[in-house]
Amino acid sequence: MCRWIAYRGQPVFLETLLFEPENSLISQSLRCRKAEVATNGDGFGIGWYGERETPGVYRETLPAWNDRNLRGLAHQLRSRLFFGHVRASTGTATARINCHPFSHGRWLFMHNGQIGGYERLRRRLDQLLPDDLYAERQGTTDSEFFFYLLFANGLERDPAAALAAAIAQVEAAMRAASIDAPFRLTAALTDGRRIFAIRYASDDQPPSLFWCGRGDRLMIVSEPLDAEAHQWQAVPAGHMLIADEGVTARPFAPAPARAA
Amino acid sequence: MCRWIAYRGQPVFLETLLFEPENSLISQSLRCRKAEVATNGDGFGIGWYGERETPGVYRETLPAWNDRNLRGLAHQLRSRLFFGHVRASTGTATARINCHPFSHGRWLFMHNGQIGGYERLRRRLDQLLPDDLYAERQGTTDSEFFFYLLFANGLERDPAAALAAAIAQVEAAMRAASIDAPFRLTAALTDGRRIFAIRYASDDQPPSLFWCGRGDRLMIVSEPLDAEAHQWQAVPAGHMLIADEGVTARPFAPAPARAA
Amino acid sequence: MCRWIAYRGQPVFLETLLFEPENSLISQSLRCRKAEVATNGDGFGIGWYGERETPGVYRETLPAWNDRNLRGLAHQLRSRLFFGHVRASTGTATARINCHPFSHGRWLFMHNGQIGGYERLRRRLDQLLPDDLYAERQGTTDSEFFFYLLFANGLERDPAAALAAAIAQVEAAMRAASIDAPFRLTAALTDGRRIFAIRYASDDQPPSLFWCGRGDRLMIVSEPLDAEAHQWQAVPAGHMLIADEGVTARPFAPAPARAA
Amino acid sequence: MCRWIAYRGQPVFLETLLFEPENSLISQSLRCRKAEVATNGDGFGIGWYGERETPGVYRETLPAWNDRNLRGLAHQLRSRLFFGHVRASTGTATARINCHPFSHGRWLFMHNGQIGGYERLRRRLDQLLPDDLYAERQGTTDSEFFFYLLFANGLERDPAAALAAAIAQVEAAMRAASIDAPFRLTAALTDGRRIFAIRYASDDQPPSLFWCGRGDRLMIVSEPLDAEAHQWQAVPAGHMLIADEGVTARPFAPAPARAA
Repeated sequence: MCRWIAYRGQPVFLETLLFEPENSLISQSLRCRKAEVATNGDGFGIGWYGERETPGVYRETLPAWNDRNLRGLAHQLRSRLFFGHVRASTGTATARINCHPFSHGRWLFMHNGQIGGYERLRRRLDQLLPDDLYAERQGTTDSEFFFYLLFANGLERDPAAALAAAIAQVEAAMRAASIDAPFRLTAALTDGRRIFAIRYASDDQPPSLFWCGRGDRLMIVSEPLDAEAHQWQAVPAGHMLIADEGVTARPFAPAPARAA
Repeated sequence: MCRWIAYRGQPVFLETLLFEPENSLISQSLRCRKAEVATNGDGFGIGWYGERETPGVYRETLPAWNDRNLRGLAHQLRSRLFFGHVRASTGTATARINCHPFSHGRWLFMHNGQIGGYERLRRRLDQLLPDDLYAERQGTTDSEFFFYLLFANGLERDPAAALAAAIAQVEAAMRAASIDAPFRLTAALTDGRRIFAIRYASDDQPPSLFWCGRGDRLMIVSEPLDAEAHQWQAVPAGHMLIADEGVTARPFAPAPARAA
Repeated sequence: MCRWIAYRGQPVFLETLLFEPENSLISQSLRCRKAEVATNGDGFGIGWYGERETPGVYRETLPAWNDRNLRGLAHQLRSRLFFGHVRASTGTATARINCHPFSHGRWLFMHNGQIGGYERLRRRLDQLLPDDLYAERQGTTDSEFFFYLLFANGLERDPAAALAAAIAQVEAAMRAASIDAPFRLTAALTDGRRIFAIRYASDDQPPSLFWCGRGDRLMIVSEPLDAEAHQWQAVPAGHMLIADEGVTARPFAPAPARAA
Repeated sequence: MCRWIAYRGQPVFLETLLFEPENSLISQSLRCRKAEVATNGDGFGIGWYGERETPGVYRETLPAWNDRNLRGLAHQLRSRLFFGHVRASTGTATARINCHPFSHGRWLFMHNGQIGGYERLRRRLDQLLPDDLYAERQGTTDSEFFFYLLFANGLERDPAAALAAAIAQVEAAMRAASIDAPFRLTAALTDGRRIFAIRYASDDQPPSLFWCGRGDRLMIVSEPLDAEAHQWQAVPAGHMLIADEGVTARPFAPAPARAA
């Protein structure tokens, strides 16, 4: 169980959300509230949009609470759209290249959950990636694989359809391999303008997801950053949150890609 | 609040004590039981005696639960006397040079607790070190300072007297600086043959300390490694455990060094 | 261009070969002599056989010359067979999981060189691995891939034949993908008893390889550790060195696996 | 011998100076041209002024050429005044807290050179620091000490006088301890507006220093970033470069502080 936050709105210094709230992401790295595994100390990362079209990414294997570089960066960096992620490994090695968020071109992706039986599926799943994406992966996590699978399913044309198709592909592979462990995906995607967040699981236990919109500020989080300062709304299981001009939540279900 | 273990006895692979027990030190790094701060993820270290007279030391800033090198070393290394320590920083930076155990010549030292008001005392305390020890310190922790203060007080001649005198010196400096915060010291020392462990505090809350001796095997620990497999005895506050030929616990109090 | 050393013989402390010679491996990490890229600072690793049948492995992303843990371990560890490797990355990320030597069961493997055009070949090459090996890889280097390909070609039954067949497979894949860049492989393998070292390239520039045997001590190295203390012999291009009871060098050529 | 760069002028992305020039600082980390020790791989750091009055600082123990976070940050961060430093340790441990630049309030400091015999002098020199500065140091380098000594000598009121007085104090301590090794200081200081750079040594071998001013762009560097693109001027030994409204070079000599 990892923990993450996505922000979009007036540019804010990252520390105002990463460090200052009562139950900030960095607090959650040491002790989160809504998960069985309370410590998210297996690396972390931030991704942010500044003056470039592509995002900056800073990923580190130290626990987030313990990295003075992160504190300094969060004090200096101001962004209108950023992601933060603290990791609790589900088995893969702790290395920067396995830390979220992952970036590719203009896009960022981060994930809480896992593809059940991934080790047994790796070979089968890898075949779903086209040649040009196959070799771009730098690490070995199921999360990075899934990010590239989204590109293979047309992420840049239609993110919602890409998510639906990619999940359908993974679940088909799991069925073919008779894997009973669930596929859980509470994740966020952005192209630097829109954010797509999803709360999905193949069983009835999708990782938690909350959001809060006020004026033009939007926060999407694994768990509320405070008890009272904001009015947090739970995203229902099987729903997707789309932040484009406005923010809408809508039911979501896997769906094989339509024939072209 | 840190956590530590000291072992002396038949040579054992380090993993049998660091990883295998139900409440092993590595488990305690992720979630210990008897401390307010449950996570000890701010670096760790092991020190062991092998074929050399001086100990080997391996210290790392990653959380202990997350370091595959530690797992490999603990599987390979067999030792008749070793220390292991997982750190929860009380403010000093996380760096290898600030991780326990500290070594000097044949000696190892590790510590749970802190010198109250250390930042205000640093200048005054440093003056207690003779020239030759002054420049040998590599980090900036109160623990490393105290280790060198023990040498300044004759550790190599009489460890118990050195502990008593060094604590008296620190407490005198604290009084002179009107520091109210307590000095807490649950620590272990060894020269590769004997182990000296102490449970002391200037207030009534010395960090916990337990031990278990069976045959020629001795374990001294911050908290029991299991609920039932061994019979753990609490070391009373203000006591020192001396493992020489046998193991004895005796009351301990600070005492200024006698004039030569 | 990486640098490596393999030792077999009377148990020696690792530091006697890693640190002490005039042109020791650790010296080579900062400035080696026989390569265009003089610095091998992109991580390192050691693998050694001690009391267990499986080797211990310690890998780190810091430059070898700069890691006090390595110095301490090399002072303490004594081994009758060990590998040491300092890395100059050919592009893959610096992460512990990408450092040599790689281990699997009783075996260790380390490599200097590269598979030309690996990024374009990754997908094709991965298909050569059977299911059980496919998911065991932890990193993303061509070297780790090749190690697993050796197992797929019967490394445990006949190492020389496995090397010949694996190289033939890689070269076939390169031809099929019309890759002109060379495949260079100066590598060592061991099961903890025998050592197989190879100096091979698909062009005429295989990385250098030397060896020195005196009594029951055998050293195999990327470049001589000293100018005068030992009599180093160059391994000719396209040769394999097999250290079993004795040491023999013999011509080597890729050869497709014979049908079973 | 370390290597560093200071920039002031129109805001530029850090990468344009850290990575892009033919002989960029990051190139120098792997192989610099004008020093005996060619590799500066013992950690690095950057400090920059953005929207805050205090600078951001990012320091890391990996070699600069090998840190993808640095590449990402240098691509994103744009600054009107920044420092970059690649370190070749003169003995002190490689730890983030020992990496340059050092920051304190609005100030940044970085240094190439060393205080001869520092280990023997540490105790004596530490006494020159007032209480409030004494405990603020986080590492154990001579460079960080000297930075704090500048504050003790009125850096904030008169940087040139503080440099002259601090050097005089260090040299007096060296004489008192009969230290023959030289004190070498090629260093840069900034408050976010002005830059003070100095090239000084107690012997005749001050580390190299160059600068280039064109329009409102100023670069001060250990060694030229290119052979032809800019006209680099050497700063003479025993000179200080002051970049205030304009840039002036003037002779510099240690001078004890005047009585208040």
